[in-house]
Amino acid sequence: MAYRETDKVRSRKAQTFDKILVAALYVVAEQGFNSVQMADLAKRAGVATGTLYRYFPSKEALCTEVFQRATDVEVSKVQQALAETSGNGAERIAAALRTFAERALRAPTMAWALIAEPVDPTVDQARLDYRQRYARLFELAIHDGIRDGSLPEQNAQLSSTALVGCIAESLVGPLAPARSQEVNSPEQTRSAALIIAPIVNFCLQGLTGRPYEEKFHD
Amino acid sequence: MAYRETDKVRSRKAQTFDKILVAALYVVAEQGFNSVQMADLAKRAGVATGTLYRYFPSKEALCTEVFQRATDVEVSKVQQALAETSGNGAERIAAALRTFAERALRAPTMAWALIAEPVDPTVDQARLDYRQRYARLFELAIHDGIRDGSLPEQNAQLSSTALVGCIAESLVGPLAPARSQEVNSPEQTRSAALIIAPIVNFCLQGLTGRPYEEKFHD
Repeated sequence: MAYRETDKVRSRKAQTFDKILVAALYVVAEQGFNSVQMADLAKRAGVATGTLYRYFPSKEALCTEVFQRATDVEVSKVQQALAETSGNGAERIAAALRTFAERALRAPTMAWALIAEPVDPTVDQARLDYRQRYARLFELAIHDGIRDGSLPEQNAQLSSTALVGCIAESLVGPLAPARSQEVNSPEQTRSAALIIAPIVNFCLQGLTGRPYEEKFHD
Repeated sequence: MAYRETDKVRSRKAQTFDKILVAALYVVAEQGFNSVQMADLAKRAGVATGTLYRYFPSKEALCTEVFQRATDVEVSKVQQALAETSGNGAERIAAALRTFAERALRAPTMAWALIAEPVDPTVDQARLDYRQRYARLFELAIHDGIRDGSLPEQNAQLSSTALVGCIAESLVGPLAPARSQEVNSPEQTRSAALIIAPIVNFCLQGLTGRPYEEKFHD
């Protein structure tokens, strides 16, 4: 009879997988991908190094999984902002860009790791894939905006990638490790707004061809 | 007496270095960084593999050198477009963006390699450095535009990084290997313009907050 995993075994495996992943997410959020060390991580997760390698055959595989899990959350937040914000297409896009930037500035090391940290090519490839996912979300919203009259006719596909590049690249500087600090206090929230407003303005003006003045959202 | 390189030795070394670099530039322009194989490259350059490794201790070192040489050319073309285009700040920025995009679409594989190909972290790091160089060029031009009245007051530093992100990211799709083709014929030039115009429009609208309509430059 072939070996079959019992529910109990499956559940224990899933728990171990999650323990490792959570430990890795912490390390990346605190110090970035380049601080992930397999032996150190096994210790944090409370598993043997050999066990860690059974779940993730390489550091690259583990980092790619971390990237995907963390970015899935960010993509879903952007998606949620686009879906749940009331208003026209342009307003919903502004809200989504604001959400993306605010979340990035609140967890700058993680955001830096996800957006720009020099890493293994497998993570780079995942970045390209996820940027397409962001772009597709924005593309749909741009079409909505064209339909509801809040955006002029345009090549929605190119505009959507322009948005993704614009928001990601303009956050790279403010997120870079040397300058980064967690955004928690009211002062920091205001200073984050000073970064976010010009980025949202640029993006919305790019889309609409009209002056746009981002309001401060305290 | 310490060994001193004669001029002849130095010149021979420089020639070997250049032969290797030129061969590597060809490979990257044709197939991207991931097709660089040290042994194959040594053969193309007409040197022994051991010699190649004396000049470039690793594939990463060689790829980083290729990246820097090729990107230096692109940076200087953008710089030249900014410096030599007549007109106000906004017009000079439009010309520089057009130059960047046209050159990228004319050599799509090389441009893809330089901008987006998943590659070693040392090249990734060089990408970050060079994007800052592009951003600084645009930042100066934005200040010029604010002074000459062609651009409204804005955070020139954030707008400059927004421009860099926008132009790079919106070209990633059109440059991706599956879709890429050399732009040589008049039809291809027109189809390149169909990609470039919306990107330049978005960028200039982002900067000015006014409608911008890129003219076709055949």
